[in-house]
Amino acid sequence: MKKIDGGVTAAKGFSAAAAAAEIKYKGRTDMAMIVSETDAVCAGTFTRNVVKAAPVRWDMDIVYSGKAVRSIVANSGIANAATGENGRRCCEKTAQLCAEALGIKKDQVLLGSTGVIGMTLPMDRIENGIKELSKNLSSELSAGLEAERAIMTTDTKPKQSAYGFEIDGVTVTVGGMSKGSGMIHPNMSTMLCYITTDASIEKELLQEALSAIVKDTFNMISVDGDTSTNDTCIVLANGASGSRHIAEKDEYYEAFYEALLNVCTDLAVEMAADGEGATKLMEAVVTNADTKENARVLARSVVSSDLTKSAVYGCDANWGRQMCAIGYSGVDFDPEKVDLYFESGEKSLLIVKDGVDAGYDEKEASDILANECVRFVFDMHMGDACATAWGCDLTYDYVKINADYRS
Amino acid sequence: MKKIDGGVTAAKGFSAAAAAAEIKYKGRTDMAMIVSETDAVCAGTFTRNVVKAAPVRWDMDIVYSGKAVRSIVANSGIANAATGENGRRCCEKTAQLCAEALGIKKDQVLLGSTGVIGMTLPMDRIENGIKELSKNLSSELSAGLEAERAIMTTDTKPKQSAYGFEIDGVTVTVGGMSKGSGMIHPNMSTMLCYITTDASIEKELLQEALSAIVKDTFNMISVDGDTSTNDTCIVLANGASGSRHIAEKDEYYEAFYEALLNVCTDLAVEMAADGEGATKLMEAVVTNADTKENARVLARSVVSSDLTKSAVYGCDANWGRQMCAIGYSGVDFDPEKVDLYFESGEKSLLIVKDGVDAGYDEKEASDILANECVRFVFDMHMGDACATAWGCDLTYDYVKINADYRS
Repeated sequence: MKKIDGGVTAAKGFSAAAAAAEIKYKGRTDMAMIVSETDAVCAGTFTRNVVKAAPVRWDMDIVYSGKAVRSIVANSGIANAATGENGRRCCEKTAQLCAEALGIKKDQVLLGSTGVIGMTLPMDRIENGIKELSKNLSSELSAGLEAERAIMTTDTKPKQSAYGFEIDGVTVTVGGMSKGSGMIHPNMSTMLCYITTDASIEKELLQEALSAIVKDTFNMISVDGDTSTNDTCIVLANGASGSRHIAEKDEYYEAFYEALLNVCTDLAVEMAADGEGATKLMEAVVTNADTKENARVLARSVVSSDLTKSAVYGCDANWGRQMCAIGYSGVDFDPEKVDLYFESGEKSLLIVKDGVDAGYDEKEASDILANECVRFVFDMHMGDACATAWGCDLTYDYVKINADYRS
Repeated sequence: MKKIDGGVTAAKGFSAAAAAAEIKYKGRTDMAMIVSETDAVCAGTFTRNVVKAAPVRWDMDIVYSGKAVRSIVANSGIANAATGENGRRCCEKTAQLCAEALGIKKDQVLLGSTGVIGMTLPMDRIENGIKELSKNLSSELSAGLEAERAIMTTDTKPKQSAYGFEIDGVTVTVGGMSKGSGMIHPNMSTMLCYITTDASIEKELLQEALSAIVKDTFNMISVDGDTSTNDTCIVLANGASGSRHIAEKDEYYEAFYEALLNVCTDLAVEMAADGEGATKLMEAVVTNADTKENARVLARSVVSSDLTKSAVYGCDANWGRQMCAIGYSGVDFDPEKVDLYFESGEKSLLIVKDGVDAGYDEKEASDILANECVRFVFDMHMGDACATAWGCDLTYDYVKINADYRS
């Protein structure tokens, strides 16, 4: 298993492009296309928000139908959410235009949108964008990066990750890109995430792997507790590596699973660290909980707490906030059995022992919180289940960005 | 039913006092005492946080035991939460000192604390404080206000409310005070709330009324989604009005219920409006939902949304955020049947019709959001259940206050 460069064009048989269609932004790219040169099996997970954007419903239909996919078209600026019948027509038309440009069928085209809710997509600009995208497709790593940049909204950094591994001497690659910065919360954080792989794998196994991995990665990050209308995570597998087909849960499946997990973990952590206005990455690690699900709930409660997030921003070692956050998580436990450590890098400081002040040094604790990546490690002393959640600090800039997002 | 002046000393037979004990703050009062001249029946609701402060557990034992109560002693500065055995001993000692000073029994004393979690109460200062409090008890309205000021933490305004009504020509009064500004969230928002009444009422009826009222008042406000370790709401009824005893759900009970509801609603709304860093009160009104509980969940989801709160601060009529917030509330509904109005005072503007943009005027919408009290009114078109939740905007000052709360 090797971390390698690139994103959606790292795997064989995939090309990508970006275009500046002026959908809402000016002077930057805002449309991306990903194309597989052959039919790809696909798996997907989608927002649980009842108010689902039109492209989310479009993708769900295709992914759940079991059809093979050839392309993904995504835009930033306008979310095409809460747009009713009109929004559905925009999806149909966009897929149709893409299909014509590429010589494929419209139900082989997945769609993604991110941006302002309630606005209507300008179809003339989308049409021009698709023409440009289909002309500029490239399998270079740089094309993957350009596609990623085109779907960014308030993101400050592009997010890509790729891993390679071998099956009987043949190199298989999994690479992905994602955007997401505000409206980030467990249950498919706000994001569009597109992952490609040249592995050959059964659709059911691909979906099973993705669904399991999302629980421990994208569903374990929080920026602001707002679950978006547009969250989408798609994996396309086109088999172009030429490696043997993965049809059961054997050692090859395990290797593939690990690569996909690595890509998703990298992208999830990058999204948390790039949360709107964030200056720090915050990790909550819950160890020795009674069940895996309880460990997840406890960890998420800490990274979702505005009070904890504000204290991390201010380097305030006010550990009562972390104890309070696990206390209202909904999970039952004995507060007087809990230990809490503040950590950063190799440094670890015992802050709470058996639920009360462990007599730590205030300066040492505050110094740990001054780092760019801080970790709260809980020992619940109940069992052996563990989970990690990621978030960021709450800063003036989060408020600033969101007080007038649309202008 | 008449709104009257005062708080915990508005009802007959109650006195109060404040003292500056220097528990943590300097140059201000930080201890309060409320005393009933005769035995009072009591009802209470408490935080659902698993990490319950020592005084919360102390009060729960007394309230659930059915014992009559004579006094409440509360302090600000230190929460006496996550303090283990030591915290329990502080409660025992505080109650003992109060009982000695007043010539009552220690299990007739309720306790409340609010402030930093994890710190130990300085018992020598508490002892001096109790001596001072017991010497300065007064039934003047000003004494009630002083008691309220002593339990404030980051509150910027004291919160009191009182109502009077008649039973067979005898005036009965219900009056209360509360503090709470950060760590405010449904499930007993962050607060200490003490209500006194000179009504004579069965303990079971008092508890039933309080439990029902809390669901529609204190549990419907949110400042930051953090449910505190110390939330406590207590009602003492001493019968000093001399009015007839309320022993069943008759017209007198209804009148009492209305007075208690009014006091709790006033205090809840005042707490939301005084949320940490808040510049505006935000109301979410859900109408025509299928069930009362779903209406509550939908309304709370809106006032809890950081994105909505930031947009309200910036007067940004980005209605997608309100639609998104009801969408992830966990309640099922048809997004394309929802109407949304922005309101302030008498002004009402239709923003969303059948789930999509109603073609409103942007300037008009933004003008409504510029008011000090803004209301989001949803028509779900599903049934006839309604609920209201209250919150506030998210501002730079919230972050500032909480980035270094302890200093």
